[in-house]
Amino acid sequence: MYRSHTCGELNASHINTEVTLAGWVQKTRDKGFMIWVDLRDRYGITQLIFDEQRTDLSVFEKAKTLGREFVIQVKGTVIERESKNKNIATGDIEILVSELNILNEAKLPPFTIEDETDGGEDIRMKYRYLDIRRNPVKNNLLFRHNVAMEVRKYLSEQGFCEVETPYLIKSTPEGARDFVVPSRMNEGQFYALPQSPQTFKQLLMVGGMDKYFQIVKCFRDEDLRADRQPEFTQIDCEMAFVEQEDILNMFEGLTRHLLKEVKGIDVDKFPRITYDYAMKTYGNDKPDIRFGMKFGELNEVAQHKDFGVFNSAELVVGIAVPGCSEYTRKQIDELIDWVKRPQVGASGMVFCKYNEDGTLKSSVDKFYDQEDLKKWAEITAAQPGDLILVLSGPAHKTRTQLSALRMELGNRLGLRKPDEFAPLWVIDFPLLEWDEESARYHAMHHPFTSPKPEDIHLIANDPGAIRANAYDMVLNGNEIGGGSIRIHDKELQAKMFELLGFTKEEAENQFGFLMNAFQYGAPPHGGLAFGLDRLVAILGGQETIRDFIAFPKNNSGRDIMIDAPATIDDAQLEELHIKLKL
Amino acid sequence: MYRSHTCGELNASHINTEVTLAGWVQKTRDKGFMIWVDLRDRYGITQLIFDEQRTDLSVFEKAKTLGREFVIQVKGTVIERESKNKNIATGDIEILVSELNILNEAKLPPFTIEDETDGGEDIRMKYRYLDIRRNPVKNNLLFRHNVAMEVRKYLSEQGFCEVETPYLIKSTPEGARDFVVPSRMNEGQFYALPQSPQTFKQLLMVGGMDKYFQIVKCFRDEDLRADRQPEFTQIDCEMAFVEQEDILNMFEGLTRHLLKEVKGIDVDKFPRITYDYAMKTYGNDKPDIRFGMKFGELNEVAQHKDFGVFNSAELVVGIAVPGCSEYTRKQIDELIDWVKRPQVGASGMVFCKYNEDGTLKSSVDKFYDQEDLKKWAEITAAQPGDLILVLSGPAHKTRTQLSALRMELGNRLGLRKPDEFAPLWVIDFPLLEWDEESARYHAMHHPFTSPKPEDIHLIANDPGAIRANAYDMVLNGNEIGGGSIRIHDKELQAKMFELLGFTKEEAENQFGFLMNAFQYGAPPHGGLAFGLDRLVAILGGQETIRDFIAFPKNNSGRDIMIDAPATIDDAQLEELHIKLKL
Repeated sequence: MYRSHTCGELNASHINTEVTLAGWVQKTRDKGFMIWVDLRDRYGITQLIFDEQRTDLSVFEKAKTLGREFVIQVKGTVIERESKNKNIATGDIEILVSELNILNEAKLPPFTIEDETDGGEDIRMKYRYLDIRRNPVKNNLLFRHNVAMEVRKYLSEQGFCEVETPYLIKSTPEGARDFVVPSRMNEGQFYALPQSPQTFKQLLMVGGMDKYFQIVKCFRDEDLRADRQPEFTQIDCEMAFVEQEDILNMFEGLTRHLLKEVKGIDVDKFPRITYDYAMKTYGNDKPDIRFGMKFGELNEVAQHKDFGVFNSAELVVGIAVPGCSEYTRKQIDELIDWVKRPQVGASGMVFCKYNEDGTLKSSVDKFYDQEDLKKWAEITAAQPGDLILVLSGPAHKTRTQLSALRMELGNRLGLRKPDEFAPLWVIDFPLLEWDEESARYHAMHHPFTSPKPEDIHLIANDPGAIRANAYDMVLNGNEIGGGSIRIHDKELQAKMFELLGFTKEEAENQFGFLMNAFQYGAPPHGGLAFGLDRLVAILGGQETIRDFIAFPKNNSGRDIMIDAPATIDDAQLEELHIKLKL
Repeated sequence: MYRSHTCGELNASHINTEVTLAGWVQKTRDKGFMIWVDLRDRYGITQLIFDEQRTDLSVFEKAKTLGREFVIQVKGTVIERESKNKNIATGDIEILVSELNILNEAKLPPFTIEDETDGGEDIRMKYRYLDIRRNPVKNNLLFRHNVAMEVRKYLSEQGFCEVETPYLIKSTPEGARDFVVPSRMNEGQFYALPQSPQTFKQLLMVGGMDKYFQIVKCFRDEDLRADRQPEFTQIDCEMAFVEQEDILNMFEGLTRHLLKEVKGIDVDKFPRITYDYAMKTYGNDKPDIRFGMKFGELNEVAQHKDFGVFNSAELVVGIAVPGCSEYTRKQIDELIDWVKRPQVGASGMVFCKYNEDGTLKSSVDKFYDQEDLKKWAEITAAQPGDLILVLSGPAHKTRTQLSALRMELGNRLGLRKPDEFAPLWVIDFPLLEWDEESARYHAMHHPFTSPKPEDIHLIANDPGAIRANAYDMVLNGNEIGGGSIRIHDKELQAKMFELLGFTKEEAENQFGFLMNAFQYGAPPHGGLAFGLDRLVAILGGQETIRDFIAFPKNNSGRDIMIDAPATIDDAQLEELHIKLKL
């Protein structure tokens, strides 16, 4: 045993105890006759003291050679510290060292191992093992472990069984691109890595395992947008003999448990809003409801008043920005420029100040009188002191633009508080969405999602209007989980594939095993999956998932620490029955 | 909610309660005026009764249509059963059904869904979702979940942090073959799937995460021997600032905890034997010590007696088979044939009966008198009534053969009791083993294993004699876990790669990141990994891992349920910058 205690546990109650510690040299202060060393491990920092008067000379001399990040072991006595440090748990004591053993020397690290480091993203990734020594990263990993443990404990107590599903499965063209794995033993054939264990969890339901979960890696070979990873972790769940209500209650319970256990926060019953309501009210199917600024649709009051821009628009919609009626023209112009950026794409923006004195002043006073503007204020729920901002255009596009503005203002005004948690359910998603490019319907969730029974009659004539038994859990403006009640009837599943443009043969080839399984007694079932990386980041009060992943990849899908992917040798290719085509 | 109770929980205390149940029809008995149905779910079986007198006619008629494995929902009243079934928890009651809802019909399953099924291995794999409905398979999966949860709870309580390491890593020629994944975004390059998270866990130690574990899938593209899987699960563990003793104690504690929690068994401190002792005493580095039959080396007493076979042999070694002195010549001949099978490969076997009356009778009485044979009995610890069996030849080969015989006899004589658990540690493994084919040393454990400090001087002249700080945990004749203290010094690691025949460039290419990391303050560290599939199977008292894996692959690495691997289309190959070479 290299240590009797960790560097985080000694305090005044240990004074006069002989201890052995091991860890890394955080820093040294050499005053000539006295050397102090901050010794760090996973648990904290303990101050060591080498004193020319009291320390053996050879030990004292050796202490002079210590550099940052040296790994050392020391024996010594816990003594009371002269100048106490109230900021750390061990701040009342220090160790008067009698023996010093250098376990490993260290080159100067390429960035400082401090909470605030001078290392940029790339260098931190290349030396991730050094980055992990820093408290913020280390604590994120510990936090992630705690969240995962709490998930497992809660679901196990609820009777769920964690089942490992296979990683070497079959490629399916539906959905995102698969990563594939050439088979050596099955010439010319490939496995695929799972994008999710979707079909396997459904087969487990057919198999009678009525409460399943798994914390599992999933893989998508997509062009990486910021903060996406080619491999990511899901909390994958499925239940049989349940209706949507049962699933919402179960996983609301899980999330409430997590908020309580890892954040100490009690939350009320989650609000439930429909997809339609979310889109109309927030322009977004994953609204951040920590703040207001709900959309007010102004068509009725703003159209037919000689303002051509509004008159010709499908939708005129505004929000009331709290407390911003005194924005200068310059500030407002900056906002207008912001919405006109290509990433947002609005062509212009109308504003209306609701002054503290109750008067209203808009950029379109030529067309609207006080009475008109009063109605704008009513519909956007503006109060005196607010600034009303109005966009117009095609409905969906305009909502998306206003949503971007709302989120931006939420950030700027500090309304998106990292220590506040406002979960909700968004339900009644459309079953299908039309894809212009391929000129066919795509499954909005996935092809196994059940339509609402009362909407099934729309299949023939208005499939786009069918609502699904599908739901998302949304937290602070992020979709943290989503799922659906599944189809468990072979005929309906076949019809669904047809609707999605599969030929019978394609459906049979790719999902024959599932439809076959449905013939042998499939129970009603449904489930959902949480994105663990995102969930942990949000619970941790942060926006980016990368620092909650021990060894993340960069935006080109590379692990720059180990330098992967890499070339492999010809013999390996040969064995796998493939060659390069560059 | 489709049910108010499960099919496993109703008993006499529920009589007169109105309940709703859902599940599968296990079987029906139709007596014309009365129909009984066994309704099954994950939790048990409950008997339903439809009575012409008391059941609504339409319900009664519908009940007549039920077939095996139909999925149904029923409402009814719990009533006392006339002929009680003491074998099942719900045997005191039955449900008088008032409503019957057929949730899904079922084709006749291709094998019976009973504890003892008529389905062969292949058909059970193809319809694995039906196989999972059977108690033996379902209970194995639940058992696996419990074991994994107990592992996680125990290690978490001991301060371990579960860290997810990446699945898309870099291929290394050392060890078994990698599965590889062509990269779309990095043309001509490949990821590899991890054979184990070995280097990542060592980097976590360099990163200060001093107690790490992970239950994680690993991948090896090897020709599959019976009961191997291309993807398998490890409990992967690592600790920093520890010596071998600390690791043995920690994971002995984990295993003891598991035996206690999941089997209700208390075990003593694990015996520790060296690799050399294990080989000499059991001919095997994973001995089953639930029974004796320890090897007795007979060279001193059996050589130089005119028996040429023994005289010319490197090793003469025997075991005493308890209570078998009265075996007939035919029985003994069968054993001789058994050891001469190509799978064992002995050229012959000598026997000696130690009769109950104290006399000894051998197949080589021509060369040995009673006094000689008495010594055989002493050395093999034979008692009157035992049968001594003796093999001879080259030492290692002969030990292996006698070990096979010992295990076979252990099985035949019922000495390998599935409900008895005899764990032990095997320590002091050799660091290297000589590989005839490649004419070089290979790492016996892996290239990161630390030699024993006192043996390091042998590197130059006798590397084969170096012992490693490596250890295996053995349970009932199976290696369930293995690990080592690692090298944490860059120089020693470089020397190790040299010894294994790596050029400097190869070592740098493949493991440069690790050796680089060792320059920045690597702590002493070590760990081990358990094979979860095998551990669970052995704790479950079974020999084969396949039924403890939800969706296993067959011996050709195929998943015959989903028919993977499979061909992928040309566009997909194109995107991945590869083509087939058949």
